[in-house]
Amino acid sequence: MNDFVFHNPDKVYFGKDIMKNLPEELLQFGKKVLMVYGGGSIKKNGLYDLVKKLCSEHGIALFELSGVEPNPRHTTANKGAEICKKEKIDVVLAVGGGSTIDCAKGVAAAAVIASGNVWDLVSTGTWVTNALPVVAILTNAATGSEMDGWAVISNMETNEKIGLGGSALIPRVAFENPEYSYTLPVYQTACGAFDIFNHVLDNYYLAGDAIFDMVLEMQEAVMRAVVKWTPIAMAEPENYEARANLMWASSMALNTILDAGTVHGCACHAMEHELSAYYDITHGHGLAILAPRWLEYILDETTAPAIARLGVKVFGLDENPDAMDGAKHAIAAVSDFCFRTLGLQSTLTDLGIDSTHFRAMAEHACGGGEITGLKHLAPADVQEIYKMCL
Amino acid sequence: MNDFVFHNPDKVYFGKDIMKNLPEELLQFGKKVLMVYGGGSIKKNGLYDLVKKLCSEHGIALFELSGVEPNPRHTTANKGAEICKKEKIDVVLAVGGGSTIDCAKGVAAAAVIASGNVWDLVSTGTWVTNALPVVAILTNAATGSEMDGWAVISNMETNEKIGLGGSALIPRVAFENPEYSYTLPVYQTACGAFDIFNHVLDNYYLAGDAIFDMVLEMQEAVMRAVVKWTPIAMAEPENYEARANLMWASSMALNTILDAGTVHGCACHAMEHELSAYYDITHGHGLAILAPRWLEYILDETTAPAIARLGVKVFGLDENPDAMDGAKHAIAAVSDFCFRTLGLQSTLTDLGIDSTHFRAMAEHACGGGEITGLKHLAPADVQEIYKMCL
Repeated sequence: MNDFVFHNPDKVYFGKDIMKNLPEELLQFGKKVLMVYGGGSIKKNGLYDLVKKLCSEHGIALFELSGVEPNPRHTTANKGAEICKKEKIDVVLAVGGGSTIDCAKGVAAAAVIASGNVWDLVSTGTWVTNALPVVAILTNAATGSEMDGWAVISNMETNEKIGLGGSALIPRVAFENPEYSYTLPVYQTACGAFDIFNHVLDNYYLAGDAIFDMVLEMQEAVMRAVVKWTPIAMAEPENYEARANLMWASSMALNTILDAGTVHGCACHAMEHELSAYYDITHGHGLAILAPRWLEYILDETTAPAIARLGVKVFGLDENPDAMDGAKHAIAAVSDFCFRTLGLQSTLTDLGIDSTHFRAMAEHACGGGEITGLKHLAPADVQEIYKMCL
Repeated sequence: MNDFVFHNPDKVYFGKDIMKNLPEELLQFGKKVLMVYGGGSIKKNGLYDLVKKLCSEHGIALFELSGVEPNPRHTTANKGAEICKKEKIDVVLAVGGGSTIDCAKGVAAAAVIASGNVWDLVSTGTWVTNALPVVAILTNAATGSEMDGWAVISNMETNEKIGLGGSALIPRVAFENPEYSYTLPVYQTACGAFDIFNHVLDNYYLAGDAIFDMVLEMQEAVMRAVVKWTPIAMAEPENYEARANLMWASSMALNTILDAGTVHGCACHAMEHELSAYYDITHGHGLAILAPRWLEYILDETTAPAIARLGVKVFGLDENPDAMDGAKHAIAAVSDFCFRTLGLQSTLTDLGIDSTHFRAMAEHACGGGEITGLKHLAPADVQEIYKMCL
């Protein structure tokens, strides 16, 4: 295994009766708060009103940035940074899903640089060690942004969707009430769940130096939870156990507990970011289309044992003495989960995407090199995988 | 499941090439360091010299408190606190196993109170929110003290061994190099491993409200790692994979990741602390004698499914349609692990302990009430369990 550092100071309140702690947590940073949110869902489920009420009761001045997009734009983050500078905001409060939290991180980072333009940080790959504090109230189990140091920001002018990372971007406090995800549509529930699953799968190493047996077992525990609880959350949107398992799985998948000793891989994520940058599709759906093809593409003698084990440990398949055969059954199980259980359309063609930009996307996904992972991918490999998704 | 807060700001460096980070981590707190350690083992394995060299190269003044006991005494912690006060120490550096880290926490807490007596905090059950910062270099996988907010301090005058807890007691930084546990004797390896196993087992809930499916699966992953890797570490003391799995399991067992949504139980731990308070036996050995008897004692219709599941998920037993029968096989597997695999003597009689103090110990273990857990235990229950261990 590899050496690692685990350091995640995020303080997470998880459960039903947690919002009463919001004011004191905000006030440790100051009295001026910028609330960042997306569309109207938090107005429908009462969360918007609750935050306003709690803040007003505790003398907290609340400013607002609304309309955050599902793939949050750098221009939106910059608008928030402008408010922060003008109003001398003390803390950025994200209320929503991963896109909203990502946008809030972009706001927090841009607010402390002279240009106020988050793209200056994103485009230069700057590791962010200075930013306004971010507090997150999570409403959607998916991206893990509530407990990680990353934000994915999109620039629609250049068709780029790129990660911005840094220790200062880990939320200082996160509030996770599974009940706030009750109103999520079935499609969003499915896509969010596959995002979680794929965060773990992208890091699922069984070869080379990056093997840490206990961590592997914990990765499998989280993936099993997603496989078990997602169909239940889809069928019974108000099943607390299901929503809670998915919400904590979202946080566990990216709080770096499951990275210990391994290499943080991101094969499907790197490939998918291109799809949503070009076509603005739902991230988890793009991942679900890619993942089974990726596994199929990288399947060979060296990867077969890992993929076969995925089938046994996560999907409950019988042990297969032939690793290659076991791996094929495992890939079929992943496909079945994506396209039957989650009910997602199975091809890029279904989403109106053709091969026009595959070459440019593949080049960009590899960033001038290769995508690291269970098997490294060069642009030609990525282009091939895109084609398998048509 | 229950609501919970997860907050563990400990920064853990894990692996072979980590000690180079020690000076900068100490210097963030100041230039005066009290190094706390036990006997001579860190002098034999070179760690003592390394710490001295690193500190001297970086202008760090190093003071020393040595001779920490396996069940650390309040008097020893008080001696350290006196040095801290006199020398205006900035940070307490523990170098050793759980006892040493516990002692360092006691020092850090006592150093900031007027009396300088840690027992004033222990005996009043004070939650410690103010203490000198603690940094830990771990040499033994066992107690989890390197990543938790607890210390167990013994008062040999009153035969008391009691936990001292508080957010200020979580080490700010921990260094975990599995190689430093290579020189541990087989007996200490076995006892430490069972301490880890039992930390998880004490929290293994499958009944009532405190069920969190994904966390249960993660608990099982950690227990499986202990069952798998301990005999390997015993047979091959320098097997890095084995030592690393045990060391990280030690931290995972008590960093509260595995508490999420459950109730933190401590049945065997509460009972064992009495044994080591009265007889100064090795904590993990006491736990190994108690655990199978505890499971046998609490086995009934309500607990059988949990105990049976332990057998299947952790010890690889076949599913048993009869939960009671499955549970009995699971208890046999725990016994087998303790007394055959770990090679530990199986009775209190073997350790020279008789029933003289059982009643007083049972009363004290329950602290005037009951021990919470999979099944609550009153003094009469505890006394009965002690008797089963003779």
